[in-house]
Amino acid sequence: MQPEEGLARLQALGFGDADAQALWEHFDDAEQRGKLGHGYSRIVWLESQSGFDPAATPRRVEEAEGFERWDGNGAIGYLVLEAAVKRALESPPEQARLVVCDRTFPTGMLGYYARILASQGRVALVTATSPARLGPPGGPKVAGTNPLAIGVPSSDGEPLVADVSMGAVTWGDVIARLRSEDELVPFGGEQWHKAFALAVGLQAFVDALHSEPGHGAVMLVAQPEADPVPALRGTGIRLPGDPK
Amino acid sequence: MQPEEGLARLQALGFGDADAQALWEHFDDAEQRGKLGHGYSRIVWLESQSGFDPAATPRRVEEAEGFERWDGNGAIGYLVLEAAVKRALESPPEQARLVVCDRTFPTGMLGYYARILASQGRVALVTATSPARLGPPGGPKVAGTNPLAIGVPSSDGEPLVADVSMGAVTWGDVIARLRSEDELVPFGGEQWHKAFALAVGLQAFVDALHSEPGHGAVMLVAQPEADPVPALRGTGIRLPGDPK
Repeated sequence: MQPEEGLARLQALGFGDADAQALWEHFDDAEQRGKLGHGYSRIVWLESQSGFDPAATPRRVEEAEGFERWDGNGAIGYLVLEAAVKRALESPPEQARLVVCDRTFPTGMLGYYARILASQGRVALVTATSPARLGPPGGPKVAGTNPLAIGVPSSDGEPLVADVSMGAVTWGDVIARLRSEDELVPFGGEQWHKAFALAVGLQAFVDALHSEPGHGAVMLVAQPEADPVPALRGTGIRLPGDPK
Repeated sequence: MQPEEGLARLQALGFGDADAQALWEHFDDAEQRGKLGHGYSRIVWLESQSGFDPAATPRRVEEAEGFERWDGNGAIGYLVLEAAVKRALESPPEQARLVVCDRTFPTGMLGYYARILASQGRVALVTATSPARLGPPGGPKVAGTNPLAIGVPSSDGEPLVADVSMGAVTWGDVIARLRSEDELVPFGGEQWHKAFALAVGLQAFVDALHSEPGHGAVMLVAQPEADPVPALRGTGIRLPGDPK
């Protein structure tokens, strides 16, 4: 998809220019990284969704040095995290800040936000809940794929970005018809219980911090004291988030 | 092992009464939960170790509403996290606090600390680095098993405690000769890269926050706004950390 088409389709959904641009950059980045389930297919998907207001603006409802709370206020989750990331870069914590985003869904590739923060020198940890699609074998679906993304700046210019969903496949890939819904189980094979424990644990963690029901996100932004990534990259292995 | 013997052996290593008691409670809790690699076998292991000063006291070197830094100061890691947890309960953050523990190793079962915090009403996330024992197949060992523990309080009395190591087996089990060192690879079978990405990501995250080289721990302590655990438990599945 060309930018002109993507932007036009997002604007046709009612998004303003800046928001359409931000969404396009997210989808285009996913597409470039081969994460097709988070890429252009999401524009098609958005065209089939309701439940978000393209004119809504996320609200920052609490604000302190070490804590911030946002409310999606009807905006689509991507734009809530975009706003929270922008704010964290403009007004970074001296040491650390927990940023809780209520009513924030869907949020796309969490590694995208972690990468923006880490590219600008901040350590970041991002997680989010999503509809319950994971359960024990034969049991009820009780947890989202609830990814954990970690971004760490590097003096060599390329941050380390780990972005791990607890599902064996992504919902995005199901939407893109690259995978079937049956394949969406906790990753890990016979050790599925480990990924499931992370999915349930992260979900309870996020849900416990929210003051409004609904899916949401939690982001930790911190100031680094050390620069461990160049040595890790120096081992010669491919680091998470590096090009294949 | 009976408490008398365990305490006597810990005291023989030079630990004072309160510290020996704290260590014994950790090892005994692990043993009761069937985590033998973190249980009494660690007393035998400590008897073979040097590099910690049983008389040392962890120091709190930075202190703010949303951030705290501790330095192990030569003390064994368990007692550094014990001290940081005690402090977090005595003087909890209004909303959230990131607690970075420099020179803090070994720390045992991270779920132990998450459970103490969650049992007293705090949301907790704990991670820590350890010697590099995980790598890609055939590649160098670059990451510790770097567990992630999550504790979430519950109004039904039993917190949710997820505690997931990124290794297919634990180093504790290797020490206890329950597993061979060859089995210590990232969990996940053919999706090993996901657990490996988490191990590398958590390691860089912890290392980037530390102002002193060496293994360490990071703990997030937060005030809950909601109570999601009873509904999760109500689905009838066994939650992470619940008795088998």
